[in-house]
Amino acid sequence: MVKPLDGIRVLDLSHVLAMPTCTMQLADLGAEVIKIEKPEIGDDSRYFGPFINGESAYFMSVNRNKKSLTLDLKQERGREIFKELVKFADVVTENYRPNTMKKLSLDYDNLKKINPKIIYASICCFGHYSIDQQSPGYDIIAQAIGGLMSITGYPDGPPTRVGSSVADIFSGTFATVGILAALRYRDITGEGQSIDISMVDSIFAVLENAVVRYTLTGEVASRIGSSHTSLAPYNAFKAKDGWVVIGIGNDSLWKKFCTAINKEELISHPLYLTNDKRSRNCKQLNEFITAWTKERPAKEIVELLSKDGVPVAEVNTIDKIINDPNIRLRNMLIEMNHPKAGKVKVANSPIRLSKISNDNIQPSPLLGEHTEEVLREILGFSPEEIEKLKMQKVI
Amino acid sequence: MVKPLDGIRVLDLSHVLAMPTCTMQLADLGAEVIKIEKPEIGDDSRYFGPFINGESAYFMSVNRNKKSLTLDLKQERGREIFKELVKFADVVTENYRPNTMKKLSLDYDNLKKINPKIIYASICCFGHYSIDQQSPGYDIIAQAIGGLMSITGYPDGPPTRVGSSVADIFSGTFATVGILAALRYRDITGEGQSIDISMVDSIFAVLENAVVRYTLTGEVASRIGSSHTSLAPYNAFKAKDGWVVIGIGNDSLWKKFCTAINKEELISHPLYLTNDKRSRNCKQLNEFITAWTKERPAKEIVELLSKDGVPVAEVNTIDKIINDPNIRLRNMLIEMNHPKAGKVKVANSPIRLSKISNDNIQPSPLLGEHTEEVLREILGFSPEEIEKLKMQKVI
Repeated sequence: MVKPLDGIRVLDLSHVLAMPTCTMQLADLGAEVIKIEKPEIGDDSRYFGPFINGESAYFMSVNRNKKSLTLDLKQERGREIFKELVKFADVVTENYRPNTMKKLSLDYDNLKKINPKIIYASICCFGHYSIDQQSPGYDIIAQAIGGLMSITGYPDGPPTRVGSSVADIFSGTFATVGILAALRYRDITGEGQSIDISMVDSIFAVLENAVVRYTLTGEVASRIGSSHTSLAPYNAFKAKDGWVVIGIGNDSLWKKFCTAINKEELISHPLYLTNDKRSRNCKQLNEFITAWTKERPAKEIVELLSKDGVPVAEVNTIDKIINDPNIRLRNMLIEMNHPKAGKVKVANSPIRLSKISNDNIQPSPLLGEHTEEVLREILGFSPEEIEKLKMQKVI
Repeated sequence: MVKPLDGIRVLDLSHVLAMPTCTMQLADLGAEVIKIEKPEIGDDSRYFGPFINGESAYFMSVNRNKKSLTLDLKQERGREIFKELVKFADVVTENYRPNTMKKLSLDYDNLKKINPKIIYASICCFGHYSIDQQSPGYDIIAQAIGGLMSITGYPDGPPTRVGSSVADIFSGTFATVGILAALRYRDITGEGQSIDISMVDSIFAVLENAVVRYTLTGEVASRIGSSHTSLAPYNAFKAKDGWVVIGIGNDSLWKKFCTAINKEELISHPLYLTNDKRSRNCKQLNEFITAWTKERPAKEIVELLSKDGVPVAEVNTIDKIINDPNIRLRNMLIEMNHPKAGKVKVANSPIRLSKISNDNIQPSPLLGEHTEEVLREILGFSPEEIEKLKMQKVI
């Protein structure tokens, strides 16, 4: 089967989550991703739990379909080998702090001399072109600085980090878009280029209407829980055994909702007649709806309201969404057979193309699993050379 | 200047946020995006506030660099014109409910007969291939079903919708990756294909370690506020005038932190000696740190701790991040000159390629602004034909 990135080779110096998310997406699309790791140690995330037979499932979940080559870039010989590989590569990816690659003389300006067609993609907290280049790029730092935490949470509660590392995952996905665009640019012009993704930029770019609300009106968006600035009822409501969300986007849905809960008299209630009135009286409205929802199981509420076309959904806990029939039908949970850990289920790619299968995945590599293969097949190293490099701890 | 998507024409049937995010990214990269809108009405989001001179800034913020063609697809003549345009297009995008395009006979199976090279990308709530195809795709529904709300928020509080529409924005960005991959596949094989992005899949794919924690250990990840499952202190803390986040990833940073706040005696305190102990005693730890932070302005805390290399950041409110010097330096807030609204500032693309400028943007189009241009230049329609179509309200 043809894949879109067949024949594209990525030298992947990335670690933990942000750039590994990008290179996993590239590998899913058919690129040969060679993950370059510190000999004996490897990616930091190999030490993140949960573990199975001593192997990190965290690592497995973002490194499928990749190869692993150990290479010590702090040794001159390691850097030489890396530069040799660059001659046979299309893309280099990294998410160290901005000066790290420069200190090793492996930044874009140096590598483009070796291979002018190389595409060099970086992710860091503030961007390589920035005032404060050196701060570490923890996800929580970018979510905080980027403004997303200030608008996530409840008005009477603290600012809230999103429950998954969306600064990492957004910046990784934006890097993927950048690399695919740069490959196309290279097809047209024959030229490589560098890509500079900032985690703070990435969060800033997804603040949605909060940006124009400030630039136009000076209004500083704040935390409004799960509700909506201009629609009501539109919120999370407590059910007997969990939570549901109900989203009433217009007056016609309000009528359907009142009818479905057998409260037709509310349709023309002066406090709730229009969306504008419902928004202004949303406190009473939410209290009233909660009084109704909390007496009923979530499943029953969803069945009752969705039957009448009212937008409603259960707030799924993780076990529920993982066992959801539609997630299973769409093969969003995929099993890989790891040589040490055995069968492990991870989230599959959400990018579904009709002519490209997402069904066969290779497990994440063991540390250095492909070192010999890469050095032999790409650079033509002999077994003796490889043995010597092992002795010198270069690989 | 060459752009990666020069010469790529997108017929964009999308509305509101999810797919418009995708086509904005495509337009930023040089594609000709022709947004097709209902005559006289247009995209629903043209009616979302805030407004300036009657024009929606919400709409402006996700529709820059696009053209607008009005076309009534409910009329036979409108569908004919659309099909003519498909012959001259590379990509069709839409985010209606699954059956909408089929009812109009404008789904992939019909359009590929007209143009076998067409790439057809859809976003909907559950995916076109799904059990329950017809539910509406509100962002809050996908965040709820996908499990993200259940892990966002505080343990003693309700599940929490992320403060921006990340189900829309993730699914839009995944569609961009899919389209770029499909274009490359077409370059190799000459074949088009369809892309089926589900908003629920998109949220499921970004749940991060919560998925493997459940599949491996059965642990159901829940809400832990802004803290970390296995690191402490790593949280949001109240400052005198706002909030800060502090992220102590290891024992060496703990020493630096204690020294920076003049509490060296805590370094070897039996409750806090190792990360494991700090995690187990994080309640006392957080209380103690809050007692220290709440006496000081956020700015002072950030200066004091960052000087010593402790990962720290202010939780920026929207006004602060918009006026942040680094955001300004990186041109992340860009001004467009709208013909009716005047100068409006919106968030720029975070995808920064060294050879492609993000500095010149065209404002979002007025409804039907490019109708005549598109019909004349692509299909060769005469002024008389165009006049007739206007009379018939086809355009």
